[in-house]
Amino acid sequence: MSTGPITVGILGAGQLGRMLALAGYPLGLRFRFFDPNPESPARDLAPLTVASFDDSSALAAFAQSVDILTLEFENIPVIALEIVQKLRPLAPCPQALEISQDRLYEKNLCQALKIPTPANIAVETKEQLLQAVQEIGFPCVLKTRRLGYDGKGQKIIRAREQVDTAFQALAGSPLILEAFIPFTREVSQIIARNKQGEIAYYPLSQNVHRDGILWNTIAPAPDAAALIPQAQDYTTRIARKLQYTGVLAVEYFVHNGELIFNEMAPRVHNSGHWTIEGANCSQFENHVRAVCGLPLGNPNERGAARMFNILSTLPDTERMLAIPGAHVHLYGKAERPGRKLGHVTLCEQNAAQADELARQVESLLK
Amino acid sequence: MSTGPITVGILGAGQLGRMLALAGYPLGLRFRFFDPNPESPARDLAPLTVASFDDSSALAAFAQSVDILTLEFENIPVIALEIVQKLRPLAPCPQALEISQDRLYEKNLCQALKIPTPANIAVETKEQLLQAVQEIGFPCVLKTRRLGYDGKGQKIIRAREQVDTAFQALAGSPLILEAFIPFTREVSQIIARNKQGEIAYYPLSQNVHRDGILWNTIAPAPDAAALIPQAQDYTTRIARKLQYTGVLAVEYFVHNGELIFNEMAPRVHNSGHWTIEGANCSQFENHVRAVCGLPLGNPNERGAARMFNILSTLPDTERMLAIPGAHVHLYGKAERPGRKLGHVTLCEQNAAQADELARQVESLLK
Repeated sequence: MSTGPITVGILGAGQLGRMLALAGYPLGLRFRFFDPNPESPARDLAPLTVASFDDSSALAAFAQSVDILTLEFENIPVIALEIVQKLRPLAPCPQALEISQDRLYEKNLCQALKIPTPANIAVETKEQLLQAVQEIGFPCVLKTRRLGYDGKGQKIIRAREQVDTAFQALAGSPLILEAFIPFTREVSQIIARNKQGEIAYYPLSQNVHRDGILWNTIAPAPDAAALIPQAQDYTTRIARKLQYTGVLAVEYFVHNGELIFNEMAPRVHNSGHWTIEGANCSQFENHVRAVCGLPLGNPNERGAARMFNILSTLPDTERMLAIPGAHVHLYGKAERPGRKLGHVTLCEQNAAQADELARQVESLLK
Repeated sequence: MSTGPITVGILGAGQLGRMLALAGYPLGLRFRFFDPNPESPARDLAPLTVASFDDSSALAAFAQSVDILTLEFENIPVIALEIVQKLRPLAPCPQALEISQDRLYEKNLCQALKIPTPANIAVETKEQLLQAVQEIGFPCVLKTRRLGYDGKGQKIIRAREQVDTAFQALAGSPLILEAFIPFTREVSQIIARNKQGEIAYYPLSQNVHRDGILWNTIAPAPDAAALIPQAQDYTTRIARKLQYTGVLAVEYFVHNGELIFNEMAPRVHNSGHWTIEGANCSQFENHVRAVCGLPLGNPNERGAARMFNILSTLPDTERMLAIPGAHVHLYGKAERPGRKLGHVTLCEQNAAQADELARQVESLLK
């Protein structure tokens, strides 16, 4: 990269884009965003092109206005990525998005790479579902293959009489039936891989979801030494297979002391927000470094981190900031049930200190 | 502060403004800048009003477009501050700027507060200068009272025959002759004081200047335990006297184990740039918190920090980023001799580690 000002174009302008720009400006970069929503959280931070991901001329004009391209949202139509990729370097690649947009493709990739996944069968009709339920057994989970997020597009099926309701709720989209994994916990492995193939591994983090939405991350994940080699190995297999450039997040279930692939995100991830204060170099800075072909920063932790999402309603900011060590991140979004409005990070010298302050943070997030 | 989006107007849009916005966005704030220079470093980060500080209608319109006002540049005409202050709350107050704009006023304030300063005498004519030199003795330093920065507007006088040259170089402005302090080192105390009068004290930092420009900061300053109470006490006296709100930086000479006031800056300060990675809550975030009336964040260090300014020419970014733990901050400015283009911060577990990496950073900054 020359020392001249490089402009990074980001497809999507949500909070992830906002935090990418905040991390990238210190590197002397400039930014532009593309998003259909004029009220996107990143709107204040750089010029925003408001257009649909179906608008090929707007996409082309956007690509031509920047030097390199990346994204912060995985459900961008692959055709949109193919349009911009002809005009400017794009990372990660469209293939990584294509796979991560479809739970079946993700599972097929894992199978090819010998990464364990829950047993799964693609279904479209009720007859196929009934057949699949017989093969997989109860409990199982019916999911839409595409466009699921934050627990949306999923139904747990615990008995025969729940099959119809689940099918009616999700029918109309291609579906996948998965065995329900009675996991002891969920962890995520975030890595950054740059154009040169160098990989930075973030500490494994442990995630707690509520109603399908990430609520709390503990990083580094406690008592996880035995899981780390597996997490790094599996995630590296995926990244290398896809010749991946940028930050990649893979969520795993922990079951019987082993990791089972759950899902992947070809972007910076909510379970890595703790890295802004909690790691030497955040996932956001490392994503920007990776896509610009720069050396990666140190992903190691700086202490014991706890991250809580701010969901649905905003807390009392003054009281939150009065908690020692509470780092508040608000995304500039209006309140709405289930919406991610911000997050709060703690990074303390040890887990006991972090947990004590975490109780104070939690008491303000009701 | 309500949870609605508050817009902070910043007078001046240099690198300090840029870093204030980067620190303030996560708090859910919005920003606007006012600066005569359309190429100001903060231009990409928020709307920029390009107008002169003499343009009272532009100042008024700017003030009316924001909720609260602050500044990042101390040489704003006091009359400009008085115009905007009638329209919106402003911090710090015009009086703090008026004093810090004039080395004589600063010294008079210190005298009133019983804070040691170098012996000093205001001079305008050569006759007054000759008289003052006799009183103060050699070596002494002739300085312009106003608009000096980065070593500009100063001449050391070591003997009678240097008096004429020094006077000719600086004549035409009100001047001050000061005793030259043969200091063993220079330190700065940065504090943040919020509207409620709460004060956060950053660790004392030690500064090395080259050609009058800050080159390197070591934080916390080594072997400084005996100086800390004095630094906090003196700086608190100034802040309380001025009913100061925001970040205030005071530079002191260390001479015979005692502090002697050098100068003050009513703003975030270059000797506090290390706080972005090196303190729990940076000077930039705490300035924003202070002027918004929010509780202050923890100013304590997170390790042994070293900050180097990038002056005149840009280093090889790739090689700099390849140094483990090097945090690079570029301001988006073109190269020019003596210009501050960015800085690099290290924050390591101990001073020995920081010093070893500092040598690598220095080798890339020639």
